[in-house]
Amino acid sequence: MGETTVAVWTAQEQTIARHAFDAAQSRAVASLITTVQTQAARVSSVDSLWHLHDYLSIQRHGLEGRFDFRLDGILFVFASLVKDGLLGLDELDGLDPEKLAKIAAMARF
Amino acid sequence: MGETTVAVWTAQEQTIARHAFDAAQSRAVASLITTVQTQAARVSSVDSLWHLHDYLSIQRHGLEGRFDFRLDGILFVFASLVKDGLLGLDELDGLDPEKLAKIAAMARF
Repeated sequence: MGETTVAVWTAQEQTIARHAFDAAQSRAVASLITTVQTQAARVSSVDSLWHLHDYLSIQRHGLEGRFDFRLDGILFVFASLVKDGLLGLDELDGLDPEKLAKIAAMARF
Repeated sequence: MGETTVAVWTAQEQTIARHAFDAAQSRAVASLITTVQTQAARVSSVDSLWHLHDYLSIQRHGLEGRFDFRLDGILFVFASLVKDGLLGLDELDGLDPEKLAKIAAMARF
């Protein structure tokens, strides 16, 4: 067991991971859209318009960096998504227990 | 007369120019805010959100480049603003006739 179990992903695990990843990404995007729409509706000056632009630039950069589906870093991604409330640990049910334990432990940091 | 009249700006002309410039800038900003708010309200996917971001990037760059108040290039700026409907020639009343004629002529191109 050990490193091997964590590094190996069965086809079923990959499907679970992809589904969880997509769900978390959809939530992050939906949350960002709501925030942007609220901010945009309040824009009343050129300063607040550029503030919205800056905010979008930062969020886009963050989102594109964060949602990178590669299995070799996915445990860290899942831990950060669980920590930020974008993913429930229960959505990862079906992954092997060692992976789940690592994600849960990292999400507590 | 000639070049001298166009190059020299009396204090009164500078006040008129500044006022017209500010008015056109306010209109351009107001128009952009309306467009951004309309687009933002329609955003429903990550693609349309990034499209809004790209649009804002381009518009910001254009606006910041265009609204540069320097007397030595201001006749060109005014001509382009008149051409684009952001400024009326009547708002420049009080500038010397030669400047007005140049602006009107360039605005027709």
